[in-house]
Amino acid sequence: VGELFGPVFGRGVVGVGDTGWLQAMLDAEAGLARALERAGLVPAGAGQAVTAAARAADFDPATFGTGLTGNPVPGLARALARQVPAAAAGAVHRGATSQDIIDTAMMLMASQVIGAVIQDLAQAAEASARLAARHRDTIMIGRTLLQQAVPVTFGLVAAGWLTALDEARAGLVMVRDTRLAVQFGGAAGSLASLGADGPRVAALMAAELGLALPVLPWHTDRLRVLDISTSLARASAALGKIARDVTLLAQNEIGELREGQGPEGRRPEKPPAGSGGYGGADSPPVRRGGVGGIVPPVRYGSSSAMPNKRNPVAAVAVLACTRQVPGLLATLAGSAEQEEQRAAGAWHAEWEPYTALHRLTQSAAVWGAELLRGLVVDAPRMAANLAATKGLPMAEHVTALLSGVLGAARAHDLVARASERAVGAGLPLRDVLLGVPELEEALSAAGISAEQVEAALEPAGYLGATQVFIDAALAAHGGEQDG
Amino acid sequence: VGELFGPVFGRGVVGVGDTGWLQAMLDAEAGLARALERAGLVPAGAGQAVTAAARAADFDPATFGTGLTGNPVPGLARALARQVPAAAAGAVHRGATSQDIIDTAMMLMASQVIGAVIQDLAQAAEASARLAARHRDTIMIGRTLLQQAVPVTFGLVAAGWLTALDEARAGLVMVRDTRLAVQFGGAAGSLASLGADGPRVAALMAAELGLALPVLPWHTDRLRVLDISTSLARASAALGKIARDVTLLAQNEIGELREGQGPEGRRPEKPPAGSGGYGGADSPPVRRGGVGGIVPPVRYGSSSAMPNKRNPVAAVAVLACTRQVPGLLATLAGSAEQEEQRAAGAWHAEWEPYTALHRLTQSAAVWGAELLRGLVVDAPRMAANLAATKGLPMAEHVTALLSGVLGAARAHDLVARASERAVGAGLPLRDVLLGVPELEEALSAAGISAEQVEAALEPAGYLGATQVFIDAALAAHGGEQDG
Amino acid sequence: VGELFGPVFGRGVVGVGDTGWLQAMLDAEAGLARALERAGLVPAGAGQAVTAAARAADFDPATFGTGLTGNPVPGLARALARQVPAAAAGAVHRGATSQDIIDTAMMLMASQVIGAVIQDLAQAAEASARLAARHRDTIMIGRTLLQQAVPVTFGLVAAGWLTALDEARAGLVMVRDTRLAVQFGGAAGSLASLGADGPRVAALMAAELGLALPVLPWHTDRLRVLDISTSLARASAALGKIARDVTLLAQNEIGELREGQGPEGRRPEKPPAGSGGYGGADSPPVRRGGVGGIVPPVRYGSSSAMPNKRNPVAAVAVLACTRQVPGLLATLAGSAEQEEQRAAGAWHAEWEPYTALHRLTQSAAVWGAELLRGLVVDAPRMAANLAATKGLPMAEHVTALLSGVLGAARAHDLVARASERAVGAGLPLRDVLLGVPELEEALSAAGISAEQVEAALEPAGYLGATQVFIDAALAAHGGEQDG
Amino acid sequence: VGELFGPVFGRGVVGVGDTGWLQAMLDAEAGLARALERAGLVPAGAGQAVTAAARAADFDPATFGTGLTGNPVPGLARALARQVPAAAAGAVHRGATSQDIIDTAMMLMASQVIGAVIQDLAQAAEASARLAARHRDTIMIGRTLLQQAVPVTFGLVAAGWLTALDEARAGLVMVRDTRLAVQFGGAAGSLASLGADGPRVAALMAAELGLALPVLPWHTDRLRVLDISTSLARASAALGKIARDVTLLAQNEIGELREGQGPEGRRPEKPPAGSGGYGGADSPPVRRGGVGGIVPPVRYGSSSAMPNKRNPVAAVAVLACTRQVPGLLATLAGSAEQEEQRAAGAWHAEWEPYTALHRLTQSAAVWGAELLRGLVVDAPRMAANLAATKGLPMAEHVTALLSGVLGAARAHDLVARASERAVGAGLPLRDVLLGVPELEEALSAAGISAEQVEAALEPAGYLGATQVFIDAALAAHGGEQDG
Repeated sequence: VGELFGPVFGRGVVGVGDTGWLQAMLDAEAGLARALERAGLVPAGAGQAVTAAARAADFDPATFGTGLTGNPVPGLARALARQVPAAAAGAVHRGATSQDIIDTAMMLMASQVIGAVIQDLAQAAEASARLAARHRDTIMIGRTLLQQAVPVTFGLVAAGWLTALDEARAGLVMVRDTRLAVQFGGAAGSLASLGADGPRVAALMAAELGLALPVLPWHTDRLRVLDISTSLARASAALGKIARDVTLLAQNEIGELREGQGPEGRRPEKPPAGSGGYGGADSPPVRRGGVGGIVPPVRYGSSSAMPNKRNPVAAVAVLACTRQVPGLLATLAGSAEQEEQRAAGAWHAEWEPYTALHRLTQSAAVWGAELLRGLVVDAPRMAANLAATKGLPMAEHVTALLSGVLGAARAHDLVARASERAVGAGLPLRDVLLGVPELEEALSAAGISAEQVEAALEPAGYLGATQVFIDAALAAHGGEQDG
Repeated sequence: VGELFGPVFGRGVVGVGDTGWLQAMLDAEAGLARALERAGLVPAGAGQAVTAAARAADFDPATFGTGLTGNPVPGLARALARQVPAAAAGAVHRGATSQDIIDTAMMLMASQVIGAVIQDLAQAAEASARLAARHRDTIMIGRTLLQQAVPVTFGLVAAGWLTALDEARAGLVMVRDTRLAVQFGGAAGSLASLGADGPRVAALMAAELGLALPVLPWHTDRLRVLDISTSLARASAALGKIARDVTLLAQNEIGELREGQGPEGRRPEKPPAGSGGYGGADSPPVRRGGVGGIVPPVRYGSSSAMPNKRNPVAAVAVLACTRQVPGLLATLAGSAEQEEQRAAGAWHAEWEPYTALHRLTQSAAVWGAELLRGLVVDAPRMAANLAATKGLPMAEHVTALLSGVLGAARAHDLVARASERAVGAGLPLRDVLLGVPELEEALSAAGISAEQVEAALEPAGYLGATQVFIDAALAAHGGEQDG
Repeated sequence: VGELFGPVFGRGVVGVGDTGWLQAMLDAEAGLARALERAGLVPAGAGQAVTAAARAADFDPATFGTGLTGNPVPGLARALARQVPAAAAGAVHRGATSQDIIDTAMMLMASQVIGAVIQDLAQAAEASARLAARHRDTIMIGRTLLQQAVPVTFGLVAAGWLTALDEARAGLVMVRDTRLAVQFGGAAGSLASLGADGPRVAALMAAELGLALPVLPWHTDRLRVLDISTSLARASAALGKIARDVTLLAQNEIGELREGQGPEGRRPEKPPAGSGGYGGADSPPVRRGGVGGIVPPVRYGSSSAMPNKRNPVAAVAVLACTRQVPGLLATLAGSAEQEEQRAAGAWHAEWEPYTALHRLTQSAAVWGAELLRGLVVDAPRMAANLAATKGLPMAEHVTALLSGVLGAARAHDLVARASERAVGAGLPLRDVLLGVPELEEALSAAGISAEQVEAALEPAGYLGATQVFIDAALAAHGGEQDG
Repeated sequence: VGELFGPVFGRGVVGVGDTGWLQAMLDAEAGLARALERAGLVPAGAGQAVTAAARAADFDPATFGTGLTGNPVPGLARALARQVPAAAAGAVHRGATSQDIIDTAMMLMASQVIGAVIQDLAQAAEASARLAARHRDTIMIGRTLLQQAVPVTFGLVAAGWLTALDEARAGLVMVRDTRLAVQFGGAAGSLASLGADGPRVAALMAAELGLALPVLPWHTDRLRVLDISTSLARASAALGKIARDVTLLAQNEIGELREGQGPEGRRPEKPPAGSGGYGGADSPPVRRGGVGGIVPPVRYGSSSAMPNKRNPVAAVAVLACTRQVPGLLATLAGSAEQEEQRAAGAWHAEWEPYTALHRLTQSAAVWGAELLRGLVVDAPRMAANLAATKGLPMAEHVTALLSGVLGAARAHDLVARASERAVGAGLPLRDVLLGVPELEEALSAAGISAEQVEAALEPAGYLGATQVFIDAALAAHGGEQDG
């Protein structure tokens, strides 16, 4: 992904572009060469010589003849062999097939990207934990099906985000620690050209590259690819849910959350050459006269057409990334049906979605961590929105109070009638319950005082296990951190 | 899925149709009622009363008014409350919201289906292990990009299947053992209506239902749903790869594998009423005269138009199921972006693909286990196909032999020339290498005997780590079985 | 889809369940028999005899041995041949292969369902047109990225819905009229068993079934299936966008739209046996006493836990359907890669997603039409929400007014400063512009009167081409209706 | 896509990378400026000045601050305004919002790419038509479910490919001619900032850019995007089916098709600097000594490990592209649910899959056209494979012959018994039918001569409507060409 859309879809990403792929393939070749040397199959020094030559910057993929072979490895191996001393050339690609190099490169790429995503998710989780702790008593209305339901606290919301982020992170850790395995099987998975030495070389290659040694070559068993992909998709799912919540709670009419003044107070990532202070908060608009068409300065969250707007850029960027993930995951899952000893197409169809899935998840994680760190919580607005419900969300609680005395059915009827009347008249539920003689009489006949009704109408008194759940999420997060 | 396509897409499936869903929801309600009783919140006996009433057969979903509420739970809960004694009615659905019941039912369904898939995969793995052991020395040509490559043994192929099946199974076991958790959060995840009793009831409900207790309610954290889905998709991926191999190796022109005479010697699953011996191998075609249009008897693998054909029905059925999985997985991954405290649509959009994913994976597993148990391996045909390659796949091996004496480059040239000549003349590579004076001289000048060349041309001598890999797969499988 | 979830995912649907499939297959066989008779290849009366016997109710799919052949047609054809007089049996399935019958049935199913969806979309469009006309002047704030932008009218919003619905409908009409073609190719697409009569029979069969005659059999050219699928996916996309808008605009904090008191004032679709008045607005809750657990009556939009809520059931149901469509479409698109003369799996994998796509789109269309017909527009609330923006969305307009006099850059600066001050102080933009001496002076120095500024702040004066666009959409809709 | 994988996934592609996007956006801005000038809203010459400045090479996307606004347009518009004379700056982006520019750029990109794909498909269709005509009598066995069925001719197979390619092309033409429309709606779709001039400017902008004028701005009506996407997915589906057939028919054991010696006799697309003759057929392998690790020259279809192999590179490349399409299509279909007046995420999530879908389809089309032009048909091998069936596929035909005399049931029995005996003994069906006394007697008793039986066993006599279908496909193709 280039610079045009890269700030959205590839923020903070390393290792997954052409250069990243090329380096990972070269690393795989170098790891093989060192393994061959350790196994005594190539001259001493050959492994080091190949490793020294395996620098992506020294290779030009345009010379690889990829269109002739359908994958870049034959050309790359040939070019690499040309780069090393004659004595070491025999260590290049020995015993390997193209798929060994590409699949191993996929594992190395996953190792790098998953490591980065784990860190970003840790930051995001840390920010969520802070929000959960700080806002454990910040009451807001809970919303289901996009309708006001019953009160919660924003701390509980953040605790839910935290738990999902930690679950996503744990999955990535598990995949990184158990599922990244070297691929080394030779032409058809038997390592025939290495005779009896194959398994030993494979084990040494795994050790050189910091990868696990699989039971046998996994050329057409793609569960590892699927595991990596789903671990990233899980992270994406956790981030997308948070971003969606932020876009909703940041709607002007709700206004309970907003992104920071630039989550990081950000300025343009790279100032234009020869420009002094372009695009910052203080930079002037372009002043070119004309009858219209003034172009405002580029500030965080600004719109090209509306000076009054502040867009939730980070949340939108997260969604821009995460919403591409399910389709990519489907392609990768569909590609697992690979024929015989190497697939004709299904294997090749993995490379692009696999790369994109890594890039998009990492970008979403960077955006998401920034979003959470900078998130502004408007507690008074939360209180105001709750007050504007006029007590209706507390009807359930009042009903419970009355049920003990009136029986459930009569309590339900009474409160339902009161709620309808409150809605119809635009009155607080309290005023109806305590102000309509008929209802008041029913209550006092039942021995229920106005104070009891008022208490039952108090949101802070109807939060159930909210604190327990926040504590549990924070405790689990702490354990996760220690572990 | 009904009886029309059910034998393909729903073989051996239980628990995922309307009745399965209904029973799982009722089980969730019953588990809640028993938990409430154990917590002392409802009268003694209420839990048992609700449990006794919670039989799917006693309910008519058409009466639930699902179209009024958008989900069947309100109507179901109301109907259930009507079925129990008055004293127990208060235990029905207390503290719960619809999503608690449906999500918990999803976990119960997963528990049941995953358990069944684990068993089917175990049978499939066992059959693969037998094939790997029995055919460890059955040489065949390995094929990459659907082209002949170098020799392998069928035992190695089966060992690859086995490893994938065991990986898939291990994933299902892990999900079943760690990720199936009760859902109980009430209206917005705070369990407010149960006051301080909520967490205790949740824990008891989890215990009653054999599910884990989550850190907090996971209404809009769908990673559990995603984990279940991906564990099933992994099983589907492993099965689809095997089925694809079987369809390819069963092609008439290859003929190395075929499905059994009915993998289980199967007859129609349900004989037509009043019919004696319908559809069996000896049953006659329908004899109705006419000038054409005779309809042959329905036998395993028969075609409606071609008496000579035998179709790989089981392998095709596996693929018919597994190829639907990636799209369903994408829908479920996309549905993980759920708004606030309950999603408006994304949650509901899970129910059908989740059900289908369970059903299709289980059906694929049943078909796959049957396919593997009945698989017929034609070792002579494997040998004949290998012989028909006229030694070309051994060129790599001969080159290695010659390299030691001639140097790699000259060896490569010599063998490449010989291979081209062999292809052009339709001769065995051996005859060219040993029958062309120029080449013969080069070999003898290099001190390489005809016997050495012939040995290098022997596929059985070029199997590398095949035995090591088969042993490793069988050992890993043994460990899996013990574990 | 059964009764449990059917009211959500299969509302108003006919022809796509087991019975629908079976009847469509029987219709295909009957059409073939009549074609054979018209071609003089079977005795007079045979076509009629087969047609008379081809009633789904008379067949039991469980007897078809589908699990033996991988598809139900061989068993169905055999059963059909048994049901007709001996003289007509020769007309059953003559010249056909299973795929001819299933593919033709797919076309017949599409014809029926697309016809129904066209009608539902016509109703939805009609309702949208009424909304567009009625609310052409109902001003509301437009929202982009879920943030307030500039004013529009609700009529413009409805005109946008209308245009998409009409585009979706036009696509369905085109597919129905040009892409539904008979499938008749025999065993491998040559119609060999009919000798020289094949093409004539195919043409007659197409005529009998009201389908087009393709250039040649399309067994493994699945573009027709893809065209049907995408035409349905387009309808689903148009409906999903509307439903998403409704859920957003129906949020309590926005409250500009809400679903009707039951869009159709709906009651439970099927009253429970022996129940009088169940579930209606006046029916009592279940009265069973107990300490809690009262289950409220099932009313439209009610929640199982919150008496105060009214859920946007129809909009959620639309989304519950439409969100499953992209994954199904991917499966069908992926299935288009079909091998040789009949696919081993890819063809079979179409049946379920194809069926689901029809069912879900039709259900979404029924829900969507109902939603639009009953939609309640709260114009005062729209005005109030707009007023609450305190003029900020008009900043763009005021800037334009000032630009003519002050130059674009200075105008932009001045308004930007005023807007910031207004946001900071919580004041209307008007009060800042006209109440701050510094700004007031700048304006009067520029010869801009307070009246001019107030006019520029008037939303009704900043609607641009709104009326033109509404007229264009209504005119295009009228043409669509006439056409 | 870079040079590493570009030769596979981006062959022959223009206009869809960063530069392509940037130029398309600049073209949209320039078209708007010219429209504003023609409408008299900006000074004469402003349109030309903006057009002259709108050269992608003059802009550096890294300066756009895309990460601040979430899309590159604000920064791009600002940079463009800086590049033009002061008098023309007012014509930049006037009245537009970011989405107007990006969506219009999407249409311009589609116009360019669809045009290219149409040409490639025309070439592919032309090649298919030649194959259909040339091989109309080249008999081969038809294969269903990957099993031998009845004879067809390769001309019929090619005619099927041709028909699908022409259908795909027709769809692209229709989309190009009717569905590519300008996007111009301003901040929220009302073109408010242009007052009464909006619609006129929109019409002029459409004319300037060669796009249609829509009924109204389609910001959140994504059916056009879906139509473009599905028209590309159709092309991809047609190409993928052909490529799959080629991989299957090119299997060594079948050998009926193979790719050309390089479909275009291709050499590496770009020779390495300073290299003489690298990688060509005559270039030597890398000669670096060592004990192994020789790296063979990179030739078309060569494998890195197996000198004997020739891989179906073009067919695999087509599949590598086409198999990514369904997942991308799903993302685009899912993105059609766009909120209110501009989507928060769903719109942004279109950009990457939309780009990839264009690139991959075009690459597949280039590969596919090349594949078809160079395809080598091995008619003798087709005949040999058919002969190897020993007459079994003709059993259906013999049965038909016998039915007229013996009745269908007895004929079926007799042929079925003979077929089983032939399979069991490995004998030709002919030898069994005419060589077993019992059967011979039955035939002669029925007055059927050996000559009649032999004629019925002749594949060339059992091709049904093959010629009719080939003629129809060629005629339809001719009409398509003329049209």
